[in-house]
Amino acid sequence: MAQNDSHSDYLAIAVDAAKKAGEIILKGFYQTKNVEHKGQVDLVTETDKACEDLIFNYLKQKLPDHKFIGEETTAANGVTELTDEPTWIVDPLDGTTNFVHGFPFVCVSIGLTIGKVPTVGVVYNPIMNELFTAIRGKGAFLNGDAIKVSAQSELVKCLLATEAGTKRDKNTLDATTNKINSLLAKVRSIRMSGSCALNLCGVACGRLDLFYELGFGGPWDVAGGAVIVEEAGGVVFDPSGKGFDITSQRVAASNPHVKDAFIKALQE
Amino acid sequence: MAQNDSHSDYLAIAVDAAKKAGEIILKGFYQTKNVEHKGQVDLVTETDKACEDLIFNYLKQKLPDHKFIGEETTAANGVTELTDEPTWIVDPLDGTTNFVHGFPFVCVSIGLTIGKVPTVGVVYNPIMNELFTAIRGKGAFLNGDAIKVSAQSELVKCLLATEAGTKRDKNTLDATTNKINSLLAKVRSIRMSGSCALNLCGVACGRLDLFYELGFGGPWDVAGGAVIVEEAGGVVFDPSGKGFDITSQRVAASNPHVKDAFIKALQE
Repeated sequence: MAQNDSHSDYLAIAVDAAKKAGEIILKGFYQTKNVEHKGQVDLVTETDKACEDLIFNYLKQKLPDHKFIGEETTAANGVTELTDEPTWIVDPLDGTTNFVHGFPFVCVSIGLTIGKVPTVGVVYNPIMNELFTAIRGKGAFLNGDAIKVSAQSELVKCLLATEAGTKRDKNTLDATTNKINSLLAKVRSIRMSGSCALNLCGVACGRLDLFYELGFGGPWDVAGGAVIVEEAGGVVFDPSGKGFDITSQRVAASNPHVKDAFIKALQE
Repeated sequence: MAQNDSHSDYLAIAVDAAKKAGEIILKGFYQTKNVEHKGQVDLVTETDKACEDLIFNYLKQKLPDHKFIGEETTAANGVTELTDEPTWIVDPLDGTTNFVHGFPFVCVSIGLTIGKVPTVGVVYNPIMNELFTAIRGKGAFLNGDAIKVSAQSELVKCLLATEAGTKRDKNTLDATTNKINSLLAKVRSIRMSGSCALNLCGVACGRLDLFYELGFGGPWDVAGGAVIVEEAGGVVFDPSGKGFDITSQRVAASNPHVKDAFIKALQE
């Protein structure tokens, strides 16, 4: 099987898995409003776990020789080292706070790294029925239509996405809002939607021009979205301007035209 | 015609107008990505104006004795004083930055005040096909299904929405991010979606627990959403805790359980 054929097969398998997990998310999404809070937390855990089990079982059945890293598995068993082997990195439910509250930015994120390089990506929002896909070297798509990053070259006209994260100690909070303050003086406006993977896809399809986030959960938040951004003509990098490290819990993304100005703005 | 009958008629007329304007927005939404920036700005202006003309012409034809206040008309002719007469207050396109960028939180907002009290409200997001409606005393609905605010009573578990606004002077920016910093220490997380009317509807249907915004455009941003929140069991008030003034460009909304804690947090 030629490499591109196998990548296409991998994508088709990942899309199947994401769609199946999406059905579970969709069902839970409309239940959360009708249960008590204790029940909501249980529902998140159950949905997260059920989706990860479903996705990993499905992938392992089809691709038994591949490696697997998932948010839930990592939480249970500790960090799995990323190797050069084909490795599926999965966030079964990105945007859990949104899921609890019924805010429609939730998704399944599935990424395949080969030689540690994100090579196949699937991000599926079952609430808005948006399926983002990419294979390295073969373009990025939203529901089958080719997508590309924005053409914006002026920082002041850019729409920026970021997130407040989950840490609430004073140092982190001050760093977060000081950075937002500094950036707001330089860009058009800011959006916070609560899903790292969907923010990456927002950059990929040009809804957003800039995205950065520090301190998110792990490689599962970015493994799917990174290749989707790059195949849409965008760039993914460390907010310092250095190369993107999928294991670093630091990410920035934009189109290539505003990258340098964005990095400069992020340092100021 | 009994009062409730006439209110139902008013709602039906407003829904018709919103749906027709929504078609124009939907068409423009998928064009913005394919035009140069100059063209984008023109497209916003044209879409905004075309929607306001369509809505006002439709309402005036059906309800020739009513008064009308619109964002575009006000921009052109100056402020129209709000009287006790039945007055339609319209934002033909709320979320113009989102519209330009293709971010899916855009809507038509139509509110009817009688005796200055928001009495009929319609907020329609044509991209996500979500129609929020309310008549005072008759409940609030999303696509025909009854909605209610969240039951959350603990501030620390609340999802907060706000916006960065459009002013970029240092004093406003510092006040904005200092407030966000202070609130982030007290709530679960924050969302910024770029539409005041949809933030109000988010509180109404329980996706969001808390919303405040200072310095938005005018009464057209809140006239539709205010009655939708209240009819969903929520409360709309001035961020200081005083009564809501539709003309003040200041708004807060929540469920009744967290209102006092939210007001206290907003002052700290």
